[in-house]
Amino acid sequence: MITLYDCATAPSPRRARIFLAEKGVKYDCKQVDLRTGEQLGPEFRAINPRCAVPALVTESGDVICENVAIASYIEEIHPEPPLMGSTAIERAQVLEWNWRCEFEGLSAIAEILRNTSPHMKGRAMTGARNVEQVPEFGARGKERLGYFYEDLNERLEKSAFIAGDFYSLADITALVAVDFSAWVKSSPDACLKALAKWHKEVSARPSSKS
Amino acid sequence: MITLYDCATAPSPRRARIFLAEKGVKYDCKQVDLRTGEQLGPEFRAINPRCAVPALVTESGDVICENVAIASYIEEIHPEPPLMGSTAIERAQVLEWNWRCEFEGLSAIAEILRNTSPHMKGRAMTGARNVEQVPEFGARGKERLGYFYEDLNERLEKSAFIAGDFYSLADITALVAVDFSAWVKSSPDACLKALAKWHKEVSARPSSKS
Repeated sequence: MITLYDCATAPSPRRARIFLAEKGVKYDCKQVDLRTGEQLGPEFRAINPRCAVPALVTESGDVICENVAIASYIEEIHPEPPLMGSTAIERAQVLEWNWRCEFEGLSAIAEILRNTSPHMKGRAMTGARNVEQVPEFGARGKERLGYFYEDLNERLEKSAFIAGDFYSLADITALVAVDFSAWVKSSPDACLKALAKWHKEVSARPSSKS
Repeated sequence: MITLYDCATAPSPRRARIFLAEKGVKYDCKQVDLRTGEQLGPEFRAINPRCAVPALVTESGDVICENVAIASYIEEIHPEPPLMGSTAIERAQVLEWNWRCEFEGLSAIAEILRNTSPHMKGRAMTGARNVEQVPEFGARGKERLGYFYEDLNERLEKSAFIAGDFYSLADITALVAVDFSAWVKSSPDACLKALAKWHKEVSARPSSKS
């Protein structure tokens, strides 16, 4: 059985949990306590030297630590239901929109949180190194998150789901981003109606409770 | 024939050019002049509303604009030689390392350049919107780029190429990052011997001239 190193309250491993739930894949789940810095200790460092969750250990013992890579691996060994598209162009569109939801959405929110929260002092970046906060990153993060939401809303005015007319990895990443943004009081403006409608729909899927 | 909207001097489209050269795929190449802001004009905006290169137009007229998505599409329609791995775990490792080379490498260099170059005033982010520079981002970018090089060197002490014992998309992204970093006087330190050896080898491939 595969093993997922997880933290129930963190956004990044939630992406993997929702993906696995949509696939109906069973896995052994191990919690890593980020509040006490367990991810920086020798035991977890031996699993993922980058000291971040999620980390997925395959049945052969290989370790995969980035969400897009975890999704690609699970999609190959459990193809149904497809969550990364069914044709070459669909697969490209899923990767493209997933990239945008990650670079423009999730990373902006992480930038705000890690550079402004008193709990994140000296931990302004994910990973093994301690990096000092730069408060200006909070304002930049909010600016680019606002642009991301505008673009996402425009997309969802024309498309049922983010990558096309099918639910995919890109919707999972965007859902996690929107929910995570509430932590830094940066949820999408209610005037972004298409985004709000989509968020209600994807939140109603049982996997969203993961 | 596919069409690549390109800018001969820019790092992002170079990733697509090298990938296409390794595949031996012929394409129609259209230059977009970033120096005069052609990417912001109505003609190119109709191709890619995000006003960035590369943009690949498929034979069916679909437009793909992110490198990982362009690579995935080309890999499917021209499978040989494989540049994204040959097994489920290899494909995951290519995506994971490509992600790292992009998030931790290329994006750090772009952060330095766009927030410190006098030519980039008001253009601190790629895309349709004007965003003001924050000089502090230059220092943070240099800090995280240094960590990325350390990690890459450590990886290359154990592995012939970045994602494993085969040349892949991850090597292309890292090569473009290392070459691009010279623009901001942030090339890897010469003491990172494994990284230097790898750079010499991948630079010797004919595709690197793309």
